[in-house]
Amino acid sequence: MNLGVIFLSEMVGTAMLVLLGCGVVANVALTKTKGFNGGFLMVNIGWGLAVFSGVIVSYASGAQLNPAVTLGLTVNFLGKGESEFVPGIPIDGASIFTYIGAQLIGAIIGAVFCWLAYKQHFDDEPEPANKLGVFSTGPAIRSYGWNLVTEIIGTFVLVFVILGFSYGGTPAELGAIPVAFLVIAIGASLGGPTGYAINPARDLGPRIAHALLPIKGKGGSDWSYSWVPVVGPIIGGLIAGWAALALLPVLG
Amino acid sequence: MNLGVIFLSEMVGTAMLVLLGCGVVANVALTKTKGFNGGFLMVNIGWGLAVFSGVIVSYASGAQLNPAVTLGLTVNFLGKGESEFVPGIPIDGASIFTYIGAQLIGAIIGAVFCWLAYKQHFDDEPEPANKLGVFSTGPAIRSYGWNLVTEIIGTFVLVFVILGFSYGGTPAELGAIPVAFLVIAIGASLGGPTGYAINPARDLGPRIAHALLPIKGKGGSDWSYSWVPVVGPIIGGLIAGWAALALLPVLG
Amino acid sequence: MNLGVIFLSEMVGTAMLVLLGCGVVANVALTKTKGFNGGFLMVNIGWGLAVFSGVIVSYASGAQLNPAVTLGLTVNFLGKGESEFVPGIPIDGASIFTYIGAQLIGAIIGAVFCWLAYKQHFDDEPEPANKLGVFSTGPAIRSYGWNLVTEIIGTFVLVFVILGFSYGGTPAELGAIPVAFLVIAIGASLGGPTGYAINPARDLGPRIAHALLPIKGKGGSDWSYSWVPVVGPIIGGLIAGWAALALLPVLG
Amino acid sequence: MNLGVIFLSEMVGTAMLVLLGCGVVANVALTKTKGFNGGFLMVNIGWGLAVFSGVIVSYASGAQLNPAVTLGLTVNFLGKGESEFVPGIPIDGASIFTYIGAQLIGAIIGAVFCWLAYKQHFDDEPEPANKLGVFSTGPAIRSYGWNLVTEIIGTFVLVFVILGFSYGGTPAELGAIPVAFLVIAIGASLGGPTGYAINPARDLGPRIAHALLPIKGKGGSDWSYSWVPVVGPIIGGLIAGWAALALLPVLG
Repeated sequence: MNLGVIFLSEMVGTAMLVLLGCGVVANVALTKTKGFNGGFLMVNIGWGLAVFSGVIVSYASGAQLNPAVTLGLTVNFLGKGESEFVPGIPIDGASIFTYIGAQLIGAIIGAVFCWLAYKQHFDDEPEPANKLGVFSTGPAIRSYGWNLVTEIIGTFVLVFVILGFSYGGTPAELGAIPVAFLVIAIGASLGGPTGYAINPARDLGPRIAHALLPIKGKGGSDWSYSWVPVVGPIIGGLIAGWAALALLPVLG
Repeated sequence: MNLGVIFLSEMVGTAMLVLLGCGVVANVALTKTKGFNGGFLMVNIGWGLAVFSGVIVSYASGAQLNPAVTLGLTVNFLGKGESEFVPGIPIDGASIFTYIGAQLIGAIIGAVFCWLAYKQHFDDEPEPANKLGVFSTGPAIRSYGWNLVTEIIGTFVLVFVILGFSYGGTPAELGAIPVAFLVIAIGASLGGPTGYAINPARDLGPRIAHALLPIKGKGGSDWSYSWVPVVGPIIGGLIAGWAALALLPVLG
Repeated sequence: MNLGVIFLSEMVGTAMLVLLGCGVVANVALTKTKGFNGGFLMVNIGWGLAVFSGVIVSYASGAQLNPAVTLGLTVNFLGKGESEFVPGIPIDGASIFTYIGAQLIGAIIGAVFCWLAYKQHFDDEPEPANKLGVFSTGPAIRSYGWNLVTEIIGTFVLVFVILGFSYGGTPAELGAIPVAFLVIAIGASLGGPTGYAINPARDLGPRIAHALLPIKGKGGSDWSYSWVPVVGPIIGGLIAGWAALALLPVLG
Repeated sequence: MNLGVIFLSEMVGTAMLVLLGCGVVANVALTKTKGFNGGFLMVNIGWGLAVFSGVIVSYASGAQLNPAVTLGLTVNFLGKGESEFVPGIPIDGASIFTYIGAQLIGAIIGAVFCWLAYKQHFDDEPEPANKLGVFSTGPAIRSYGWNLVTEIIGTFVLVFVILGFSYGGTPAELGAIPVAFLVIAIGASLGGPTGYAINPARDLGPRIAHALLPIKGKGGSDWSYSWVPVVGPIIGGLIAGWAALALLPVLG
């Protein structure tokens, strides 16, 4: 195992995650699609299974696919005295940079393929906000402070329960299903106010793609909000990594 | 293992359960959320996966997370001649009190974080009943007797089938998935008349939170109904614990 | 193992199945419920998880819960030279009669508890056809011949794929999940014309309960249709038992 | 194992897949069904579980059920130096022809039984396009080039992630569940523009059935579009087979 494999693995996995995740939003939100107006539960299930699919194809790197997970694991693993993400990959600046860089680039690539798959529906969509909404999250009620709180809570749940998987009683025989169910849960339960980025790469990567791609009739990329789904998840992930450490005996 | 770990584990697990469970109701019921009007199936799936997530992080204590489960297990375990909830924790007044107390406190904490995650949507929601509905259950048609019957039947199914998991042919390799599916089933099938509390802590804890929190424009906490989702589930859980004992050979 | 245990096990399991299965229809169809108008997918998922729950609590008898399954297994097992349903229970008239009798009685009991759980909603429901629809299936377009064809095809799929589970590559570690998914599949895909009885006990038992119970404002029990969801599933189950035998090498 | 078993196994599995897959579309699209207007998520779940059911009954042949999968596996297996599809069946022209021929014939058979199950609803349906839509896919916005792009991307995801299952960390204990979840994911996320054929046999077989069957009031079979859901999936499957080969270390 080397950092090149880590990079490729996280990039491929995050591209898959974003292609399918942004895809379900496109299907529900863009005009004339077969899934138009399919409901929030469909978005939740689509995103959960997008994470499932992304995890399957990035097994080699441990399928972190999310800078908030990478940072939460860092705090948690170092606190427990573990020194490697996966065998042969020490937890240090180089590996963290590799994971997060690959996640961001993968997210951009996934967003490009989502745009290609729905090209004609982007072209026919009259509302610029719906186009941006396929790529990146936005708040239902804009208020940076409260939006940040929601993203912190959502990402805390994500990283804390993922750490619960590895500590405790979740059988390895379930593979990627528990994390898929967890993402469906967070979406359904905590996705109402901000659309649950809970992943800086998932939000920032597609936002960059939105800014760069020649999308017909697009509006702005809402950069003024863009820091919230980056900073919130990082805070939430770090708190979760630390909290899981503090609650080690509880998690078994 | 000691009662301190039990307390922490049940508190953390029930907080997670209530945060996500009340969260999905907030998403479906409160104004301007992205999941607004998402349907009862979304609520069912959200609650099922909320239980899934809560179970994951309270592995150490056996993830009871519900006084009706604790009491049902007590009747059942003692009847079978088992003397411990988990290794090192004898079934006695102190441990029962610890389990239930932790569940109630955890439920209050989970409800507070749900309110924080949806703070602006609570503020903007005009209808006080919708606010209370996020926290606690209420009957579709008010009639304490029949509402009690429904809660007894629903909780009987919950505790009886959970005991079926431990007796019979449910593989340990499935982890927390069977209980998640069971909760989805009960919600979809028996949640119509009362909103399926089937858990005194899940209902009473958030109701206390509703009474204490400075929720903008809130109404009363409907204390006159509050005993139904406490007494009904306790009766149902006790009957289930006894019935599973009587039907021991059937459950294998 | 003896026939008394078989009887109890099948009765308890089928009661659970019908309580939850009829329950989800009540929730979607009866006035003022919280799941009112929740959609056909909710009915499908509810029925699938109703079967899941019923299977969990009738492990001792092999959880047949359906005369069409019992008869299909009989043809199949005898054809393969197996002589017992479960260890100690030979396949003969007495055991077949025990299985089917218990299933029918269990279905009646489950329907009674469903009625109790939704008592007030039955009382308030103005439309008699909706009341019967909670108990038993009815055709979308009445035509006994074509309705029979649909029930035969649906039950063929049920029994044939169940036999596929036991022949082939379905891991025992999945417990009752595959049959739950299969029932969701049949409901979503083949439930459109007749409401997928695919189980004589599930349909006839609740129909008897509907006829006997003092349901306020009920209409007739549609006995003229009642033979279709009995005869169709039996034919489909028998064909499936034989077909699985003929295709033994395919199923591995 | 011989080619006769392969043929039977793929034919039975694909017939099951198409019966249930086309069935859920019939239920949602045709007039007077109980699932009418049930939503795109119901279609996605129905198709995912249709694949699940088909896989269960074609275990002997490896349950490919899709020419794009067969061709993607061919490229991938040969590239890795594997020489057999399943033990005893070498990868060569005869076996590839057997797999694909059986899939196409199975798809036709499945479509015939779907038509029989929904016979009266086909008869009563006024709109010819809805009848064809039960059998075969059609684009939301017709543009052969972009429709092809969408089918290529969707099938790439299908075959690439399926190969990820076999390379990497997906436990065998999950049986056919991962592929079912993957198909739900692709439908929800990439099914919006073309209705996700992602399988030449699934689309062409039922289209042939539509042309041949005496369906009351049917219109044309849209042969001008019919090459897209054949060529697109084949291209996507081949690219995925090669890409998985190139990314072998990533997939572990």
